[in-house]
Amino acid sequence: MNIIRPTLILDETVCRNNIRRMVQKAAKLGVRFRPHFKTHQSVKVGEWFREEGVTAITVSSVQMAEYFAAAGWKDITIAFPLNILEMENINSLTKSAVKINVLVENTEVVHFLQEQLVAPVDVWLKIDTGYNRTGIEATDFELVDAVIKATTYSAKTNLKGFLTHSGQTYQANSIDEIMRRHFDSLLKLKNLKNRYAGMYGNLEISMGDTPAASVCENFNGVDELRPGNFVFYDLMQQNHGVCRFEDIAVKMVCPVVAIHPSRNEVVIHGGAVHFSKDYILNTDGKKMFGRIIIEKEGKKVLMDTMNYLSALSQEHGILKVAQSQLLHFYVGQLVEIYPVHSCLTANLMGHYYTTTGERIEMMPKF
Amino acid sequence: MNIIRPTLILDETVCRNNIRRMVQKAAKLGVRFRPHFKTHQSVKVGEWFREEGVTAITVSSVQMAEYFAAAGWKDITIAFPLNILEMENINSLTKSAVKINVLVENTEVVHFLQEQLVAPVDVWLKIDTGYNRTGIEATDFELVDAVIKATTYSAKTNLKGFLTHSGQTYQANSIDEIMRRHFDSLLKLKNLKNRYAGMYGNLEISMGDTPAASVCENFNGVDELRPGNFVFYDLMQQNHGVCRFEDIAVKMVCPVVAIHPSRNEVVIHGGAVHFSKDYILNTDGKKMFGRIIIEKEGKKVLMDTMNYLSALSQEHGILKVAQSQLLHFYVGQLVEIYPVHSCLTANLMGHYYTTTGERIEMMPKF
Repeated sequence: MNIIRPTLILDETVCRNNIRRMVQKAAKLGVRFRPHFKTHQSVKVGEWFREEGVTAITVSSVQMAEYFAAAGWKDITIAFPLNILEMENINSLTKSAVKINVLVENTEVVHFLQEQLVAPVDVWLKIDTGYNRTGIEATDFELVDAVIKATTYSAKTNLKGFLTHSGQTYQANSIDEIMRRHFDSLLKLKNLKNRYAGMYGNLEISMGDTPAASVCENFNGVDELRPGNFVFYDLMQQNHGVCRFEDIAVKMVCPVVAIHPSRNEVVIHGGAVHFSKDYILNTDGKKMFGRIIIEKEGKKVLMDTMNYLSALSQEHGILKVAQSQLLHFYVGQLVEIYPVHSCLTANLMGHYYTTTGERIEMMPKF
Repeated sequence: MNIIRPTLILDETVCRNNIRRMVQKAAKLGVRFRPHFKTHQSVKVGEWFREEGVTAITVSSVQMAEYFAAAGWKDITIAFPLNILEMENINSLTKSAVKINVLVENTEVVHFLQEQLVAPVDVWLKIDTGYNRTGIEATDFELVDAVIKATTYSAKTNLKGFLTHSGQTYQANSIDEIMRRHFDSLLKLKNLKNRYAGMYGNLEISMGDTPAASVCENFNGVDELRPGNFVFYDLMQQNHGVCRFEDIAVKMVCPVVAIHPSRNEVVIHGGAVHFSKDYILNTDGKKMFGRIIIEKEGKKVLMDTMNYLSALSQEHGILKVAQSQLLHFYVGQLVEIYPVHSCLTANLMGHYYTTTGERIEMMPKF
């Protein structure tokens, strides 16, 4: 494979191992595995899940539900507050025998669904367990009561249970903190489950951020696990101790186009339109957009944190490089970079190449 | 036009006015106008430039040169340090009668060009006038001498002059500071031009960041102007005083999916995969990803800085809204948002709709 431009390389073996490990973990825990497909956004990668026995998935938009439904997926949770403007699209999906599961967090949307749905859907109450992005606050029993009650007015809105995205684990600074935040979320959901026990059948609990799904072992009372990022992982997860470097399944390959010894910098073709501007803080307190792998004496070597992707503009990337390492770079070289946030990098690139040069398509843009 | 999902709306009238104004300014200044097409990345928008008499353009990658060459553009500057891995592609372009102009900043690449080019190209020395991203430092006469001399060894590398991107004007905090930085760059380039006067024919000067091109009137000695962002402008430019709100030609339209009165927040479908994560600092010192326009009593109203797009995750956007304004929001509503950085937003969205509902395509992804 002749790489001449910024290219996103997907290591199928690493990716399949990530999938298999999580499938086995869910099986061991005895929970339904409903992986989030927003990270890879690819029918082909979806097949690798199917080969491990996965039949239920999560997506982040109605459009993504349409894309995967067209590829034969029949049980899809749209993990985003229901956008009532897309009602026709949701009805089309349910009419084509796709089981659609939606998230609600207020009574208006429940009433709207009951009026507009042509076929029943499973309804999850989206619960905010501390991430403070969307959902009903876990202690707002008044609102939970009202929304639950609203779902019972029609057989079209089949109450399924309580779903959360504990995004707060992504901001945890240690494994211990991920655990604490995970258990805090779980206890809140179990409180809700206990509150309504016996009143509306068996209400389920759905969780599953990648940090907790990767490092926690206790999912007592959880019925469903929905991690997404683990399929590729990335530098952010490695940095949090959630995965190892060797678990990261995607790397950007970028050409070196200029060397600036006067300021210990190397310019690559690879910018914000390839990586996205998500960053982590480097050991020197500065923004880091990626870690560098170069070939030394025929072996691929991960450079230390004194050598890193330090700035991005639209097409340019700047590698800060220790003076002693500059001699390892040359114009026309291809360097590999671990991306900080694989979901956004993959979304920008729009397709992958495997290590054997096979092109893998993603969902077309909008 | 029935908008149900995050949609990028392009106001053709505003855009054409931005184009016409800059064409007229360049004509008045007596400089060649070579607009950068990396912001819009669209053959159709390119046609609007052509209708104003534009024949020479700038792009940020070889791929973008190929895209616009296929649409009939015959004089293209690739304003990126030459990536020698794309030599075959560059040769294909020159063979198809497209005049290609490239940027060099070291002797190796000049020698490489002389060996590999099948047809001559115009060569600009990329000069770093203070942005410190790419280029030869403007006072590094030794390197400038060497690169200039290298270009003379072959008729294939036709020395054209000195080109800079004064990206430092984008970080200026006032119009005065934009002016100071512009003149600093210009003086550095004129020094270089004077140094080699009479030695290599008439060496030209090419400049043209959007801030300076928009607000400065003095381009004495400049031969070519290459702004790009001005075609759409954005909140960053408005915030710097470079344009008015009414000059911003693109807006995102996003559906409201949830309201959270307990924390004065509105959730929209519209996230990092639509806007990009570029931000400016709001009046309260917090990150701002966009300004909100809503309809009040049948009129579109720009909300003040107490109401703004305050956070983005992959698909979600969070509007912080003053408590008194919450009543103006409802689930299913469409809100308009001025993006912070129109180049990256357009790149993510991949196409536009005009205000009359016409779909405008952009360069396909990679």
